[in-house]
Amino acid sequence: MIVAMQEKATEEQIDNVIDAMVEAGVSVHRTTGAIQTILAGVGPTASLDLSKFELLPGVLHVHRISSPYKLAGRSFRPEGTVVEFRNGVKLGGERVVVMAGPCSIENRAQIFETAERVKAAGGSFLRGGAFKPRSSPYAFQGMGIPGLELMREAADAYGLLVISEVMEISQIEPMLPYVDCFQVGARNMQNFNLLRELGLVRTPILLKRGIAATIEEMLLSAEYILSGGNYNVILCERGIRTYETATRNTMDISAIPVVKKLSHLPIVGDPSHGTGRRDMVAPMARAAVAAGADAILVEVHPNADKAASDAAQTLYLDQFDKLMSELRVIAAAVGRTL
Amino acid sequence: MIVAMQEKATEEQIDNVIDAMVEAGVSVHRTTGAIQTILAGVGPTASLDLSKFELLPGVLHVHRISSPYKLAGRSFRPEGTVVEFRNGVKLGGERVVVMAGPCSIENRAQIFETAERVKAAGGSFLRGGAFKPRSSPYAFQGMGIPGLELMREAADAYGLLVISEVMEISQIEPMLPYVDCFQVGARNMQNFNLLRELGLVRTPILLKRGIAATIEEMLLSAEYILSGGNYNVILCERGIRTYETATRNTMDISAIPVVKKLSHLPIVGDPSHGTGRRDMVAPMARAAVAAGADAILVEVHPNADKAASDAAQTLYLDQFDKLMSELRVIAAAVGRTL
Amino acid sequence: MIVAMQEKATEEQIDNVIDAMVEAGVSVHRTTGAIQTILAGVGPTASLDLSKFELLPGVLHVHRISSPYKLAGRSFRPEGTVVEFRNGVKLGGERVVVMAGPCSIENRAQIFETAERVKAAGGSFLRGGAFKPRSSPYAFQGMGIPGLELMREAADAYGLLVISEVMEISQIEPMLPYVDCFQVGARNMQNFNLLRELGLVRTPILLKRGIAATIEEMLLSAEYILSGGNYNVILCERGIRTYETATRNTMDISAIPVVKKLSHLPIVGDPSHGTGRRDMVAPMARAAVAAGADAILVEVHPNADKAASDAAQTLYLDQFDKLMSELRVIAAAVGRTL
Amino acid sequence: MIVAMQEKATEEQIDNVIDAMVEAGVSVHRTTGAIQTILAGVGPTASLDLSKFELLPGVLHVHRISSPYKLAGRSFRPEGTVVEFRNGVKLGGERVVVMAGPCSIENRAQIFETAERVKAAGGSFLRGGAFKPRSSPYAFQGMGIPGLELMREAADAYGLLVISEVMEISQIEPMLPYVDCFQVGARNMQNFNLLRELGLVRTPILLKRGIAATIEEMLLSAEYILSGGNYNVILCERGIRTYETATRNTMDISAIPVVKKLSHLPIVGDPSHGTGRRDMVAPMARAAVAAGADAILVEVHPNADKAASDAAQTLYLDQFDKLMSELRVIAAAVGRTL
Repeated sequence: MIVAMQEKATEEQIDNVIDAMVEAGVSVHRTTGAIQTILAGVGPTASLDLSKFELLPGVLHVHRISSPYKLAGRSFRPEGTVVEFRNGVKLGGERVVVMAGPCSIENRAQIFETAERVKAAGGSFLRGGAFKPRSSPYAFQGMGIPGLELMREAADAYGLLVISEVMEISQIEPMLPYVDCFQVGARNMQNFNLLRELGLVRTPILLKRGIAATIEEMLLSAEYILSGGNYNVILCERGIRTYETATRNTMDISAIPVVKKLSHLPIVGDPSHGTGRRDMVAPMARAAVAAGADAILVEVHPNADKAASDAAQTLYLDQFDKLMSELRVIAAAVGRTL
Repeated sequence: MIVAMQEKATEEQIDNVIDAMVEAGVSVHRTTGAIQTILAGVGPTASLDLSKFELLPGVLHVHRISSPYKLAGRSFRPEGTVVEFRNGVKLGGERVVVMAGPCSIENRAQIFETAERVKAAGGSFLRGGAFKPRSSPYAFQGMGIPGLELMREAADAYGLLVISEVMEISQIEPMLPYVDCFQVGARNMQNFNLLRELGLVRTPILLKRGIAATIEEMLLSAEYILSGGNYNVILCERGIRTYETATRNTMDISAIPVVKKLSHLPIVGDPSHGTGRRDMVAPMARAAVAAGADAILVEVHPNADKAASDAAQTLYLDQFDKLMSELRVIAAAVGRTL
Repeated sequence: MIVAMQEKATEEQIDNVIDAMVEAGVSVHRTTGAIQTILAGVGPTASLDLSKFELLPGVLHVHRISSPYKLAGRSFRPEGTVVEFRNGVKLGGERVVVMAGPCSIENRAQIFETAERVKAAGGSFLRGGAFKPRSSPYAFQGMGIPGLELMREAADAYGLLVISEVMEISQIEPMLPYVDCFQVGARNMQNFNLLRELGLVRTPILLKRGIAATIEEMLLSAEYILSGGNYNVILCERGIRTYETATRNTMDISAIPVVKKLSHLPIVGDPSHGTGRRDMVAPMARAAVAAGADAILVEVHPNADKAASDAAQTLYLDQFDKLMSELRVIAAAVGRTL
Repeated sequence: MIVAMQEKATEEQIDNVIDAMVEAGVSVHRTTGAIQTILAGVGPTASLDLSKFELLPGVLHVHRISSPYKLAGRSFRPEGTVVEFRNGVKLGGERVVVMAGPCSIENRAQIFETAERVKAAGGSFLRGGAFKPRSSPYAFQGMGIPGLELMREAADAYGLLVISEVMEISQIEPMLPYVDCFQVGARNMQNFNLLRELGLVRTPILLKRGIAATIEEMLLSAEYILSGGNYNVILCERGIRTYETATRNTMDISAIPVVKKLSHLPIVGDPSHGTGRRDMVAPMARAAVAAGADAILVEVHPNADKAASDAAQTLYLDQFDKLMSELRVIAAAVGRTL
């Protein structure tokens, strides 16, 4: 940590800050310039609340130097994390992985038809939600565990893996037999109790960026899971809230290269939630792969217009086929396969 | 709902949209202008996902007309809601209510000293957190139920009410004996499962605005609680995320008059979280009361520098005394008492 | 325009609103629903300030239906605009155009070396700033017209076109002999006096999106230029301000498909300003082309570290060569050439 | 400046960074911690582009320590700036100043009636725009200099001062005889050429915060004017762009105490542009004064509904009278007069 003192800070104020730093377990190196004194602190600052120092008399600014995350940082595993699933599919390696399926699991016909087409087009994961707490109290709330049973059956029939969202600690146990990857939704990115429990399982976790979360905050949430011992964490960019209203969210494509620089964890693009509009999904999926995404998570439905949730952002199966062939060429352009 | 067709929309496209609206249970009135056709739909549109219509061929825009909330809307109770607590304190009426206390309950001495001073200065509620999932996995996590026992004891000793944050459904039952008001934190504003359960209790709920939530979304979350039968909902502005970094969040003071216009529910200002800086708390508390807030929620601590959490935004007790006397004059200026 | 009345609006209030609409030259169609009255207005609403109607007694919301822009709208020229330059280069057609060069023109050696390399790599435009009002009053302020002379000479020597930023009305005339395309910077996107004058010249205009501008506002600014008679307008996405601080701005890649849908004007991606970091330029340039951008505007410099301005976001010439070969493959993936 | 090296930075990388710092005229102090090396640089860093250092191999982060503004900083004039006008009115002192008038000057009757009422209610300044470049090319564009003549006449008749917006360098000279204070609009906050010219006049300048500008950027723009020798700069908060759409902008009331802390310059609140809605103007004006604003800038019009511009946010004269009496009490609550 660095404490920059105000130009007119007194010796007493400086000493007072040094004492507070030492008390917090930090070693202090002082630099006295012509106009300003700077205190560099080295020690266990990752767990300190630095804002207290900012309010001490005579202090101008306090800067954190070491990243507040360690296990999620690039330097922890410079070669990058590759998450390997039980059927040998690897996420984070040379191959760009595709995860596709409906927003909500609705019935057997829907999920089987989707699985068949996702597999045929080259997808690796079947996605689908079983629990759907909706922003309107009057909307469809999901099939629950019976939905997951159907999805597992369909995935197994076509050699796909299963990813589904976990919303509460109490759902972890019942979901475990059915999923190959837990998805943590944007609203739960900072549900630290849930993250802590997910750190204790060994099933991989796809952690979605919160709608107002910085990339640093997403990495800190990943740290929570990693610190529990679950090293199979996959990050996901799905759009942030900005002032622009032409799209539901603004998909921050630049988060992909930023994550690649700061962390060793794989990063997935979700153009369905990132845009909220079916006609924007394909261009944004292509952009995500072009920018270096390790996987794409996309909503598809055999009868997209009638989907029980998220209909407007769900691709028709034919659109999905076309997208897959475009992505195959883009992947090649960035030295990958699909 | 209103569907505006594109200038060059064909009759077939228009008919197709009308069919889709009728199928959704909506009556359609058509206006054919010189350049554009407009379809006005009347019916149960509150629960419809309008974005599907936006993707139909020939559609330019779809607008929702009726508010997506009903019970939270001003017209449901034009005279305004006054929440009355068991000791007769009313929130939403003429008197501006003050809720104060530490971020976290730490020990008996701390909470009793705070209670004494809050009462002496004219406060009505003792606030304090028992469960503190922190963004860093290494920080203090709260005292739990034993902390609530201490806070209840202190509040009773000084004739104060108790407000504390509930973070999970499983905490509702154990907290019930200790609290006069449940607080729902910003991160849980859209935890719809939690909101639904809180709709079933009869203890009042203070619902904080999410860090990236619009005022409309906050009202829709209130609707969730109200629709369960709990009509004692209090809203709270505590800062939103913007590009400005001089303050931790940007406290949206204008949310106070906006809520007063759109809803009958009381609205509280939280200048501690709204700014994240002790030296900004007093001006923003004054601004909130001047703009019409029904209550102020503020962090105070007998030893603010050493507070186990949120130290930087916590007032010293002397600062709190001074703030209370300022607020008293401001309240009078807007025709209220404190 | 649509006026949605409040549920409890009186007949007198409704009549009053109808009168105000008629007075403004709008024909009114009334829809009386079970709970709500809706007034659809058809007429010259593009130039009306609709917010006045919002404050009339009994009004719930006012919605604009027709786009506030006409000439910039997709339906004005559904086939899309292709801007053709004097040497036959077309922007908006099959070929993805590359514009590259230093932030500021510094000296002959710099601009000639850059021109040679830009041409060799397949670029069509040499870019470079002559006027550089900087946010710090102490920094390099640009070479002015002598810089443009140098850039023109270098561009002609290598068969390139010239694009440079115009910052004031008084610069238009002196710049005219030197530039093939005027660039309007983000800070001037709503300098309507400047836009009006640029509507009167016949040189194409590249209009950059303001740092806090919506896509609709960018199209309205384009309308200003188009309405003066200059139909050669090219839009440019260069990053918007959001709460994320890992990149200087958040480059809104989704603006590219949104503009393609709403407008017939070509759209360019500027990954240098979009990210502010050299190491993010290549991934974001690839993403822009993958999402459908018609051109890329990128900062390159023979000695990028020592560039007089924007050094941190400027590519080395070798990085530029590599990027060009990647973009060539991506362009093919979306059915284009480069 | 502080350069934090990556954990695994080599000695060669560290030396390379030190060389680059020294070359830029900065003295370097090195702190070698157990895991990380920190380089503190002291010298003329205010004018350095620090982002170049961020891209050097082995660098983790670069932090600026000294404020990039000097003349605008609090420490330059700790007692605060009071701007005194020719009739003795002081802005920045004990008295809260009120500036009121129409968005646009329209005709003699309008501006005289307004002046009479503003004076009667206790206002000190008559505001009004003469040049109105509008976002729609079809709207009223202002009366120009003849409008200023009328406003000067009306102000003199009632003993008021005149404030009006300057939009271009060419308007400075012609406006000089008519105005007591130049207003720089939000869109011109970073028009550095205009700011430089305004630094050379001796008329006070009211500088509005840009819609996407940070407080630091506003202070840097003020620095531009101050560095030209014009020390009479007044800042103005008028709303920033956020994701919330219930108000046109989000008025950042916390900017008022932040400016008070960082700078010695007076700060004004503009609730008309801050909210865009007449019914929000009074609560936000009260909030601004409660938070410590030195003045209020507000739009009033004898016939607000028919105002040629900004009708929706303009107060009726009776509303203005009522607001003035409320503000008088609030001012007293914060130890001021009005």
